Amino acid sequence: MTATPRLGEFQRIARFFAPLAAPEALGLLDDVALIDGPPGEQYVLKTDAIVENVHFLPDDPPRQIAQKLLRVNLSDLAAKGARPYGYLLMTALRAGHDEAWLAEFAAGLAADQKEFGIGLMGGDSVSTPGATTLSVAALGRIKSGTAVLRRGAKPGETIYVSGTLGDAALGLMVAKGGLSNMSPGARAFLLDRFRLPQPRLSLGPRLVGIATAMMDISDGLVADLGHICDVSSVAAKVEAAKLPLSAAARAALAGDASLRQAVLGGGDDYELLFTAPAAAQAALATIAGETGVAITAIGRIEAGQGVRVLDEAGRAMTVETAGYAHF
Amino acid sequence: MTATPRLGEFQRIARFFAPLAAPEALGLLDDVALIDGPPGEQYVLKTDAIVENVHFLPDDPPRQIAQKLLRVNLSDLAAKGARPYGYLLMTALRAGHDEAWLAEFAAGLAADQKEFGIGLMGGDSVSTPGATTLSVAALGRIKSGTAVLRRGAKPGETIYVSGTLGDAALGLMVAKGGLSNMSPGARAFLLDRFRLPQPRLSLGPRLVGIATAMMDISDGLVADLGHICDVSSVAAKVEAAKLPLSAAARAALAGDASLRQAVLGGGDDYELLFTAPAAAQAALATIAGETGVAITAIGRIEAGQGVRVLDEAGRAMTVETAGYAHF
Repeated sequence: MTATPRLGEFQRIARFFAPLAAPEALGLLDDVALIDGPPGEQYVLKTDAIVENVHFLPDDPPRQIAQKLLRVNLSDLAAKGARPYGYLLMTALRAGHDEAWLAEFAAGLAADQKEFGIGLMGGDSVSTPGATTLSVAALGRIKSGTAVLRRGAKPGETIYVSGTLGDAALGLMVAKGGLSNMSPGARAFLLDRFRLPQPRLSLGPRLVGIATAMMDISDGLVADLGHICDVSSVAAKVEAAKLPLSAAARAALAGDASLRQAVLGGGDDYELLFTAPAAAQAALATIAGETGVAITAIGRIEAGQGVRVLDEAGRAMTVETAGYAHF
Repeated sequence: MTATPRLGEFQRIARFFAPLAAPEALGLLDDVALIDGPPGEQYVLKTDAIVENVHFLPDDPPRQIAQKLLRVNLSDLAAKGARPYGYLLMTALRAGHDEAWLAEFAAGLAADQKEFGIGLMGGDSVSTPGATTLSVAALGRIKSGTAVLRRGAKPGETIYVSGTLGDAALGLMVAKGGLSNMSPGARAFLLDRFRLPQPRLSLGPRLVGIATAMMDISDGLVADLGHICDVSSVAAKVEAAKLPLSAAARAALAGDASLRQAVLGGGDDYELLFTAPAAAQAALATIAGETGVAITAIGRIEAGQGVRVLDEAGRAMTVETAGYAHF
């Protein structure tokens, strides 16, 4: 999850927190830590917070707030190839959340616990004079040494994404009253994609041993692909025409071509972004069929550094990423 | 850590969150979870948050805020008998914390990492429009099956506390401008006890196999002893005259006897509160000598329910706990 300004967060982490990192934190470059579990197993640890008026709105349904909170964390576990195991919950609640709000919030947690097979392992519940702040520390499990990190991308490999891109960024526009000329059904679809991410927990573990680098898309395709390139010391070339779009996103872009920026730069999709050698193509097709999650090749890893996006004519496109903010 | 009203927090947890608890969370009754680690070991998981203007003040030194944040979590690990291992950090920062603030905050983390032998294993850094909120998820390690829970107290056992009680509650009064008639040295001592808890990490692991129930004192002696009694299905009798006081606290109470309420009901001492059979007395004396941490018998576990505090004449005292709040 992100806050404004995003650049500030990365600088803050690199300058002040990275020097504090334990070996298990992988230099804080992977957004997860790996610690030894029972024989042959590791735990994957991840923490992500959401803040009222930054990552969710006061009027958002509490059930969906709870589910988004859990899912942004579970998505990171999926992106390492891990199975979800449990979580710790921190709630700092402002005045005004009544019992009905809390009951709905807990119902959202309960629904996702059941869906994803996890349990609440502890937490802290405090009051705040400010914005409600919710944090989860999630635990996943994975066979030792098999977690897919961000640092393994190599020149010549193909870049893939799961699902469709840009729906959440367009859904955020809907939440803010935009895209009013679209159909109610399309608007509802996009809003749902923004409010209720689908962590790719069926797909992620299937990519262990196939994907060479993987992460989930939370800051936007170009920004997140940039992270993989940075820590893998490679460059990436993306073909904009290949980006998988939902029918709703396709309709939105047909009405306003500038919305393609939301597909390239917008965050919160929580799809998987990964690299794999060409030889993996058949295996990936099988996995896509078996999991029911689309897998789309969108570009190629090259030697060098940075992310280039090319339009249909092969011209380099400019992508706005630094200015991305939730609200 | 607590927020106002404390009673509300417990009701909230019992009603909305306890039904979500995994077996590893021990019914959320122990404030920690235990999960399997490498052979013969378990991880102890704990999360605690602190909020600006609730648990710390905007002008508090950022170095001490960082250390308090870590230590309130490490204290819970000590209270299970665990050794600290690492932590995840969530920072939701409001505007106005400049680079000097962040550098001092990080320096506080670094100092405590070194002192307690732990490393940062990951985190999330977001912005907030409200009060700065800081959360840690701490991991400890312990030999499997040896964690000291809250539920093991039995009638006839002795109740012990480490260190001295009430200093932090009196230190909070100093922070708010109170106790102005005390010496600067005494005021500084009390303020330090409030701002910089000393997690009893040398003592806690030594009590494995001796203590039958244990927790740290964060909500106040009477409230926390009440938790042990509740989950152990026993009662407790405390002799107020036996409560260990620092020289500064003794001086404060000599000037104003009503301050004894701060010793009985005030929180944030982060001393260990535990029960043990009479046969353990000699072993405890040895451990106190070797660790340099005082261990004081303050009462006895009985059949029944609830906590009674008796004054020097054996009369029941009334203790204010429900109204305890940080600021």
